Amino acid sequence: MSRVILTVCLNAAVDVTYSVPALVPGSSHRVSAVRARAGGKSVNVARVLRQLGEPAQLLGFAGGESGDVLRRDLHDAGIPAELVPTVEATRRTVAVVDPLDATLFNEPGPVISADEWALLVGLFGRSVSDADLVVLSGSLPRGVPITAYADLVEIAHAAGVRSIVDADGAALGAALVARPYLVKPNTAELAALLGRQLDSLERIELAARELLSAGARNAVVSCGPDGLLAVTEHGHWRAVSPERIAGNPTGAGDSLVAALARGCCRTPADQDPGWPTVLADGVAISAAAVVVDVAGEIDVPTMHRLRPLVSTEERSST
Amino acid sequence: MSRVILTVCLNAAVDVTYSVPALVPGSSHRVSAVRARAGGKSVNVARVLRQLGEPAQLLGFAGGESGDVLRRDLHDAGIPAELVPTVEATRRTVAVVDPLDATLFNEPGPVISADEWALLVGLFGRSVSDADLVVLSGSLPRGVPITAYADLVEIAHAAGVRSIVDADGAALGAALVARPYLVKPNTAELAALLGRQLDSLERIELAARELLSAGARNAVVSCGPDGLLAVTEHGHWRAVSPERIAGNPTGAGDSLVAALARGCCRTPADQDPGWPTVLADGVAISAAAVVVDVAGEIDVPTMHRLRPLVSTEERSST
Repeated sequence: MSRVILTVCLNAAVDVTYSVPALVPGSSHRVSAVRARAGGKSVNVARVLRQLGEPAQLLGFAGGESGDVLRRDLHDAGIPAELVPTVEATRRTVAVVDPLDATLFNEPGPVISADEWALLVGLFGRSVSDADLVVLSGSLPRGVPITAYADLVEIAHAAGVRSIVDADGAALGAALVARPYLVKPNTAELAALLGRQLDSLERIELAARELLSAGARNAVVSCGPDGLLAVTEHGHWRAVSPERIAGNPTGAGDSLVAALARGCCRTPADQDPGWPTVLADGVAISAAAVVVDVAGEIDVPTMHRLRPLVSTEERSST
Repeated sequence: MSRVILTVCLNAAVDVTYSVPALVPGSSHRVSAVRARAGGKSVNVARVLRQLGEPAQLLGFAGGESGDVLRRDLHDAGIPAELVPTVEATRRTVAVVDPLDATLFNEPGPVISADEWALLVGLFGRSVSDADLVVLSGSLPRGVPITAYADLVEIAHAAGVRSIVDADGAALGAALVARPYLVKPNTAELAALLGRQLDSLERIELAARELLSAGARNAVVSCGPDGLLAVTEHGHWRAVSPERIAGNPTGAGDSLVAALARGCCRTPADQDPGWPTVLADGVAISAAAVVVDVAGEIDVPTMHRLRPLVSTEERSST
């Protein structure tokens, strides 16, 4: 059986990196290096899936000349993509990097029209039945309904396909109601969603249980250096990296989503995917993303080195 | 007789402006407004000529998706343009503007291949005979010879067409040898070219005379708030604005070039264009650019208000 993971990127971007010797506000900088590549959380997920040897397909929007850059870069990266053309241009992000720091400028991005959204929903409906799993990840562009992820989860559900949702705020809140297979907030997103501090593992676990009460079948909370906490319909687990990895945490969450998608799509929807294995893979793969300085890429040797050292413990789920 | 001014923009850009509440290095910024428009010194000259009702035609390079933005924006601005396609992409500049300051990031821009340069030279040769004047303005892209402006001045010369060169450093130095009709350095560019401080009007005038000795038929030096100093084959003049104009000086030099091009193309090449009038127009038009916050645009009421107040004096040219 061939597995295809459908990653939906509603707010894709062209990520531009400018290298400068030093960022000095108010002055003029000659940029020594320019890199432009397709970005956005679901694009990063698709990249890592591809690196892990899992067939991923991308669905999203593309508009304007920046949309052309997006299309071309996805093509060059070997990621099959169906992109609904939009009137307004795909957003760009500019990261100005000097030896000390990275300073980010994020364009607001396009307003998606009702017709464009309807086209994407139609495409999603036709593609989803060929998929083994759907990943819905990243922020919502202006113009799509706040229930966008909930709507897509429902369509996937009707086709018998599981969804992983990596979102925050209202988009996550609305998605829960549609009973996604898995949600993956980090601690800060979970705290913001519930409006309270999550300063202990117990509180995080309690909060994750609320996600299940609200509709999610499973929740994996990424707790930074404190590892992963999973509250699932088959039990609770915690998985921790054997060492602290220094580097660029941007994209670690997307690599984790890729790991979870790969781990879950191997088993039928009604069976335990083998959470300890899935979570240990997730810890190793997201740590392997931290050592790479761009998002959407993992260092495979780091993944292989860490994987056998990850400790996973079951927690009493009473 | 219809006048056409051919403006050559070898290093056109897409100028992007990001508005942010405050630029904080090392942090992430949500950009509230994005503007992208065709830029580069000759593009600004062409825009102002168009605003002054003078037909301008642009010749340059365009590549990549940013080249498509350039083409579209010139079209939208009503500036007829012939753009040689390049393999490498047109450069972008990003200006991050907060209420205090503007911080600029300039991409290095494309490397022009020998074939691309040859194509442009060929196009220039075919277009120049229809022109009344040529404007060569701005930096040279990588890949074109340092004698690029000199080569174009010579081709124009052979067709009996005058050239205005607004460049600095080696490109200006080389251009002088080809005997351009007019060069327009500012004080800093002139000081850098000659490698000495120009801290008095007398020294600036002496330096401008050296430009004529080196080959230029006429030189207009823009001295910021100290006005314009013209050393021409018909005499020396100084023109000064009646008041200091506060605002954005970027593009004031390009507006001055537009004013000089308009003023000079009205008379045959061998006649005095009426320098006092041309210079007074130049002062009023460049001051009218300072009050507008984008380059390549003038405030017409300011121009009309200042124009009768500009004082022009002839200087003894011994």
